[in-house]
Amino acid sequence: MPATAKQWRVQERPINRSFRETDLRLVEEPLKPVGANEVMLRACYFAFDPAQKGWMENAANYVAPINVGDVMRSRGIGRVVQSNSSKLKVGDLVRGDLFMADYFTLPMDGPTPANVEKVDTTVPLLTNLSILSNTGIAAYFGLMDVGRPTAGDTVVISGAAGATGSLAGQIAKINGCRVIGIAGGAAKCAWIAELGFDHAIDYTTGDIAKRLRDVCPNGINVFFDNVGGGILDIALAQIAPRARVVLCGGISRYSSTVTTGPLNYFNLIYNHGRMEGFLTRDYLPQWPEAKRRLSTWIKEGRIKSREDVQEGFENLPRTFMRLFEGKNIGKQILRVSDPELA
Amino acid sequence: MPATAKQWRVQERPINRSFRETDLRLVEEPLKPVGANEVMLRACYFAFDPAQKGWMENAANYVAPINVGDVMRSRGIGRVVQSNSSKLKVGDLVRGDLFMADYFTLPMDGPTPANVEKVDTTVPLLTNLSILSNTGIAAYFGLMDVGRPTAGDTVVISGAAGATGSLAGQIAKINGCRVIGIAGGAAKCAWIAELGFDHAIDYTTGDIAKRLRDVCPNGINVFFDNVGGGILDIALAQIAPRARVVLCGGISRYSSTVTTGPLNYFNLIYNHGRMEGFLTRDYLPQWPEAKRRLSTWIKEGRIKSREDVQEGFENLPRTFMRLFEGKNIGKQILRVSDPELA
Repeated sequence: MPATAKQWRVQERPINRSFRETDLRLVEEPLKPVGANEVMLRACYFAFDPAQKGWMENAANYVAPINVGDVMRSRGIGRVVQSNSSKLKVGDLVRGDLFMADYFTLPMDGPTPANVEKVDTTVPLLTNLSILSNTGIAAYFGLMDVGRPTAGDTVVISGAAGATGSLAGQIAKINGCRVIGIAGGAAKCAWIAELGFDHAIDYTTGDIAKRLRDVCPNGINVFFDNVGGGILDIALAQIAPRARVVLCGGISRYSSTVTTGPLNYFNLIYNHGRMEGFLTRDYLPQWPEAKRRLSTWIKEGRIKSREDVQEGFENLPRTFMRLFEGKNIGKQILRVSDPELA
Repeated sequence: MPATAKQWRVQERPINRSFRETDLRLVEEPLKPVGANEVMLRACYFAFDPAQKGWMENAANYVAPINVGDVMRSRGIGRVVQSNSSKLKVGDLVRGDLFMADYFTLPMDGPTPANVEKVDTTVPLLTNLSILSNTGIAAYFGLMDVGRPTAGDTVVISGAAGATGSLAGQIAKINGCRVIGIAGGAAKCAWIAELGFDHAIDYTTGDIAKRLRDVCPNGINVFFDNVGGGILDIALAQIAPRARVVLCGGISRYSSTVTTGPLNYFNLIYNHGRMEGFLTRDYLPQWPEAKRRLSTWIKEGRIKSREDVQEGFENLPRTFMRLFEGKNIGKQILRVSDPELA
């Protein structure tokens, strides 16, 4: 065990502007001894989510506040290297809400401290950070409970090659829907076609509104939005009667000062449409059931995830940035140490 | 019976701009003889609704198209002056979707031609054009089915002194809610206080957001929106968890070129809020039940309406304009002839 730990601390809040690499600052500090009911973890993988920018902004206070100077948080996988808790032993590989540090200590005396639990070893390791994590929970409840798809519905997904979008589309297919994904670039579109989406629309080429009209001649029954901005407006203009617009995220909002909302929201009146948002924590009691279903679908090969794995603790802000540059296909992951090392 | 009829015909569509008096043109034409299964009516009252501007724009084609040159339509009350139908006899006083003409002929062979039916004489005559008409239906289903209030909820209503808003507030009170109305000017605020609203916020004075925070310390459970624009955004910023935003109308949109949507829609995510629109026709099979309840509440004195009655067929465009100038308190009506005359 080293004498010091490297940590990424919040240097500045990225409010009303894009995230910059310098918003996080690398700090090295002496490792404190592990106290009673505490465990020390060595970080193996971190998983990234656009919502983390919102945490740094402290937007709407919807997660525990992260202040300037705090070590940034991230979902991740770590190996227990020291344990003063009966709940985990040295060598256990765990997933949870970790800190962006190479080594760090977690208290284990709460009911679900940092949501730390042993990884599910019956599925590919990294699906613990994608399908079986917040990402999968968001796709599952966003589609199933907010979107309420029924067989035959036309479901359109923006940010469809992202971790949540790609999964929401596959769950919509399982529900018997026609699924159209909107994504940026040929590679992303090829991948979502491979996942079984009925159509992929590359928003970087041509007229999205026209192509959407072509493939949704009866309108959109469910629009699962990860993007916001102009794409949300185009979709609102094409909703079918009694459409459901699922507000899952707004990646377009994270890169700019927001100066307009959805101009076409009035179409919700003409079509008796519903636009509804959610957070994964709204479904906390139902997570085990969702994870059980998702885990079954993984094993049956009915849902797949793809990970974009970058390397090296020092590359952490750079890796986070990829989300806002549209570089990742599937879940953005950073590998910081070998999980196989004891 | 005169030899000619005066009619207000659509001269121009008021798209992306305010309604102008010259958008309607007064025309006089010979009266045609009444055909088989037709009745001729003399108009007594017309009722106005901001949505009529949308009809003239042919917005979203949500009602039968009204073309330039057509006689404009309006909800109204008329007296049957000639009848070739067994359904109505000379002298009957009826309500329905009429034409903006002093005399006009309606076919009576459809199942509900122009929704024409005898007025309900057990309630004050003009409530046939307000509470027991589209206005009341909108308030009833918008609040009850879209807003889903429960006792103890805080319900905020914009355009609260309008015909629909004032009724929605009274229905919310019957449901056991705390009701806050937003309206323009002391007279309107005094009137909604008189109707039993718990608070009235005059948007023409001071900081609406602050005053709304003061009277809704736990946030807004149901926001019933008749206005759109900046007021919708202020309300979205203050929704409570699981709030319902009822999109009933958008009077602010009718007076301007719309260049922005609700900036704070993202708050629907943080609070699992729902924003939903509707049209009264979505509830057609349930209208009789709604009218029965509304009629009972009128007779019990639990809901009241107020009418702003202008005079004279020639003043029709001027009277319609009052809606967009915020001049009316309660339902905007035009009296064009004496209903007591046989």
